[in-house]
Parts: sequence; C-alpha cells; structure tokens
Amino acid sequence: MNKKSLQSLAVELDRFVAPFRIDGSREFHLRSHESAERGGLDKDKGEKIIAANRKRLSDFQEKLYAQDRWSLLVIFQGMDAAGKDSAIKSIFDGVNPQGCEVTAFKQPSTKELNHDFLWRSAVALPERGRIGIFNRSYYEECLVTRVHPEVLAKEKIPPRLVTKNIWHERFEDIIAFERYLARQGTIILKFFLNVSKQEQRARFLDRLEEPAKTWKFSMADITERARWNRYQAVYQDIVRHTSSAVAPWYVVPADHKWFARVVIGSAIVRALDGLNLQFPRVDKASHEEFKEIRKALENEGKGGGRKAAQIAKAAAKGN
Amino acid sequence: MNKKSLQSLAVELDRFVAPFRIDGSREFHLRSHESAERGGLDKDKGEKIIAANRKRLSDFQEKLYAQDRWSLLVIFQGMDAAGKDSAIKSIFDGVNPQGCEVTAFKQPSTKELNHDFLWRSAVALPERGRIGIFNRSYYEECLVTRVHPEVLAKEKIPPRLVTKNIWHERFEDIIAFERYLARQGTIILKFFLNVSKQEQRARFLDRLEEPAKTWKFSMADITERARWNRYQAVYQDIVRHTSSAVAPWYVVPADHKWFARVVIGSAIVRALDGLNLQFPRVDKASHEEFKEIRKALENEGKGGGRKAAQIAKAAAKGN
Repeated sequence: MNKKSLQSLAVELDRFVAPFRIDGSREFHLRSHESAERGGLDKDKGEKIIAANRKRLSDFQEKLYAQDRWSLLVIFQGMDAAGKDSAIKSIFDGVNPQGCEVTAFKQPSTKELNHDFLWRSAVALPERGRIGIFNRSYYEECLVTRVHPEVLAKEKIPPRLVTKNIWHERFEDIIAFERYLARQGTIILKFFLNVSKQEQRARFLDRLEEPAKTWKFSMADITERARWNRYQAVYQDIVRHTSSAVAPWYVVPADHKWFARVVIGSAIVRALDGLNLQFPRVDKASHEEFKEIRKALENEGKGGGRKAAQIAKAAAKGN
Repeated sequence: MNKKSLQSLAVELDRFVAPFRIDGSREFHLRSHESAERGGLDKDKGEKIIAANRKRLSDFQEKLYAQDRWSLLVIFQGMDAAGKDSAIKSIFDGVNPQGCEVTAFKQPSTKELNHDFLWRSAVALPERGRIGIFNRSYYEECLVTRVHPEVLAKEKIPPRLVTKNIWHERFEDIIAFERYLARQGTIILKFFLNVSKQEQRARFLDRLEEPAKTWKFSMADITERARWNRYQAVYQDIVRHTSSAVAPWYVVPADHKWFARVVIGSAIVRALDGLNLQFPRVDKASHEEFKEIRKALENEGKGGGRKAAQIAKAAAKGN
C-alpha cells in the first residue's frame, strides 16, 4: 500500500473508532453512550467492513509476527451476553493461531489467589510479535470484587492493607502496569461491550430457548442481572479512571452485534496501521548469498547441496 | 514472646539495620558507605547474632506460612564475588525449603527476551506465605543493559520506544511495580552487597587458587571488573531512584562476609517482626469439636473412627 492509501484507510476507519474511544482527556458518562448506535450503517454495509477488516488484520498480523518487536493486547469486558465470545470468534477468524492466543479469565484458582491480582494476567501476556486476547481480564479485580466483597476476601490480602482506598489504588496500579507494558512495546486496546438491559434480557431468553445456546446460561447470570445498576456504575468508574492515551477504553455499542464488530475490528486495524509494520528487510549481502544458495539448491545432487551448506556456514561466520 | 521482648528485639536489631537502610528520604552517595564497616563487632560476636537471627527467621517463617497472607521478596544485587550466593546459603540455612524458593536470574532465554523485562520476575514472585529470594533480579535491566547497550538491543523493543528517557522510565516502572506488590502483601527487601575493588581482587585470586572455587570464575568477571567505576555509578543511580519506604535498599558493607550476614539477617528479622505474625487461631467451636475428635481417635477400633468422621462431616456442613 502507498502512503496515500494508508492515509485514507485511517480516515475511513476513524469514523467508527474515534466516537467510541475514551483516552482520559474528557469527562466520561456512560449514559451518554448509546448502546443501540449503528453509525449510520445497515447490516449489509457493516458486514462488508467486517470482512475487509478481517483481511487487513490477517495481513498486519503476518508482519507483526515477522517483525517480532511489537505485541498486541486486546481486552474484552462486558456484562453477561454482551457478545464477548462471539465478537472474538468473528473478528479473529482468519488470523494465524500460531501468532494469537485467547485467555478466558474465569474464577481464579487457589494458586492464582495465592498471588497478587495481576499475576495470572502477567503470565498470560503476549510475546513480541503476538496477539493476546483477554476474555475478561484484571479489570474483574475492580469489578466483581467490588460488587461482591466476599470475592475480594478470597484474595487473602493482609487485612491492614485493605482500606477504603483500595479501588483508587487498584486503578493507580493498573494504569502504571499498562504504561509500563506500552513502554515495552505492547499495544493495548480495551473494549467495553456496552449492551442494554433489554437486549441482555432478549439474549438470555434466546439462550433458554435454543438448545445450542442453553449451556451458556447459568443461574448466576440472573443474580448478577439483578445488580445491573451497580455494575454499570462500577464500569463507569473503571472507564473514568483507567483510560489513557496508551491504553484507551473503547465503549462499544453492543446491542447490534454486527456494529460492535465494525467498531472493534476498525479500532484494531487502525492501531496496527499506525505502527507502520514491515517485513524485516534482507540486507544486500544476504541478498547476494541467497541468490547463490538458490543456484546451489537447484543443482542439488550435482554437488550443489554441499556448496549451499558451505555458503551458509561462511555467512554464519561473517555475522 | 511478649510485647516487651519484641520491642527490645527491634531495638537490638536496628543497630545493624538502620545505618544501611535507604528509603529515599535522604540524598544518597555510595562513597559515603564504607564497604569494610564492622559495626563495632568482632567476628565471634557477629557469628552469635547470625545464629540467633537464623533461629528467629525459621520461627517467623513457620508463622508466615501458616498465616498465608504476607509474602517476602528478598533481592540480592552486587558485583561478582560480592558474596550473594554464600550470603543466601548462610542466612536461609534452616528455613523450611517448602516455604522458600531461590531464583537465580542469569542471561535471559529467548522466551524471556520475547516478553517485557519484568515478566520473568513476575512469574517467579513468591506466593502468599512464602519467601522468594532473587539472586540478581530485574535491577539487572537497569544495570547490565545500561553498561552494555548490546544487551539492551537483544530485548527487541521497538526502536521508537528506546529514547534517552529509558532509564528514568524503568526506574518509574520498577517503583510502581514494587508499590503495587507491597499493596498486595509482599514485603520487599533489597540488598546491595557493597564490596571494595581490592576485596573483589582478593576473592578472584582465591577462586583461581582453590580448586573447589575455580568453577565460579569466568573470563567475563575480569572484563566486567574493568568497568568497575561505571558499575558503581549505575548502582548509585539505581539506589537513588528506586529506594522507597515500602521497598528500601540496604547498602550492605560486604568486605567482611560475616558482617554482611549480620546486617542482612537483622533486616529480614526486623521486617518480619513488624508484621506481628501469628499462627491462625482456632475458634471456640472448632476447639470443642477438636476435643471430641481427639477422644474419638483415641478410641479408634472401638467405633471411634466412625464417630470422628461423623463429627468432621457435621462440622464441615456447619461452616
């Protein structure tokens, strides 16, 4: 792609990215964010953008992997049935699984509870050149632990350290953690799938009706639904206090699953586009050697095999 | 121990701890710290304190493990032959290895280089109730990487992120990391074994002469020795910028190995003493049940075994 087409890609995508990007530079009110937003698109147009982004993401990921410098961390948060699993499935369809790993954070294990709350996330961070997807994340440690004090108690933190400042401290610690990761070359994108209470109800009813979906339903979903307002307030607090330029939140309208995918895919492609990813260049000397090796390999069986090995050995010494 | 004896323990130990503790509240100059200091002791008196601290540490560690809330992270840094390995061996002799793990950080592996520089340390952090000992640590990432830019290059950080602020940023990231760990219940003690250049020379000569020590000598030790002043300057910068109340540095006089052990052991015992560690208390109801179970176990074979199981089952239901 030339410079001009890259610029137009950025402009094309920003329409679906900028309105939902929260970087801490302005006040944030969750109520001002419409969960049923469709960005002036219909589903057909949306599907075309989703498909185009899928192809772009796959291309960028090959370069990310080959270049082996940057890594990408994509975090998904949202209420039950907000569409986290299906968004991950749809958006990363076509990405080489060798360079991409999904970690679903469920109830922590005994071993995990024996560590600091970031530990299990830190262990699962993507290596350079890789994409790491967190289905739920360390943000649960400011969310479910806050709504349910009995979950916090399980973390076995020495009592004198659990003060009324705990949520403020966790926000501070998370911001520092993300700033550090960004400095090491991790691009961080955080998606809050903003679904309405009515839409959740419709999806729950769907799960209860369709045999292929029923396994996803649990009684806990209903008890948590009863705490809807509390969760919304805590999510608002999280977005307010942990949005930064290097680790922005995207508050994604999620009542229409296809539009959520337009926004998420566009935000990811937009971020990778900004890295100016390139396949590592072969230097001139190697280029000449590669030519000779190709010639030798073509003559394998006629002494070419040995010749190729000699060239490679000499080149290795030179480096 | 009663309150009075605990207070006198603190007073007794502070004599060997306070002068060497750097918590960021005052200016720090490495040259003002005498490497041959002996704190007014002779070796015999020193050995007695070392032995007493070893016993205290072993007792505290049992409670730390039983209580399962706090963890202890002990970091050792210092030039080659400063006495890190032998200090670890001497001080933690007698501590139950089930609750104590030493991690020696050597040249990072390919996998480790593919991650952020704190990753391999984060993975190795001690669980609650445990002691984690780092023989060298993430501080090497502000030390050897700074003295040898080619080592930094191996970290494969995207070039645009490697700026002249990199050491300042790493200090900031490390401070935030340690503040976070402290909030989660990790007690952090950092020991810089301050050895003189002459003493290092004597120890190198010793290694070259004694067959049981020769394996510890490497040619690299001599090339690094040639960079003595540079390393000293960088160590001074590290102590200046990463000392805090929750993660102080102890600049340990290390020309006399026995005195280094007096200081290190005293600092560790002093820190654990401050936690007021207790074996978890058995509540009154359990106490009654335990009595009944004891009686039933004594009558095992005469129907007591079944009785004991019944009591335990009923108690488990009650909880």
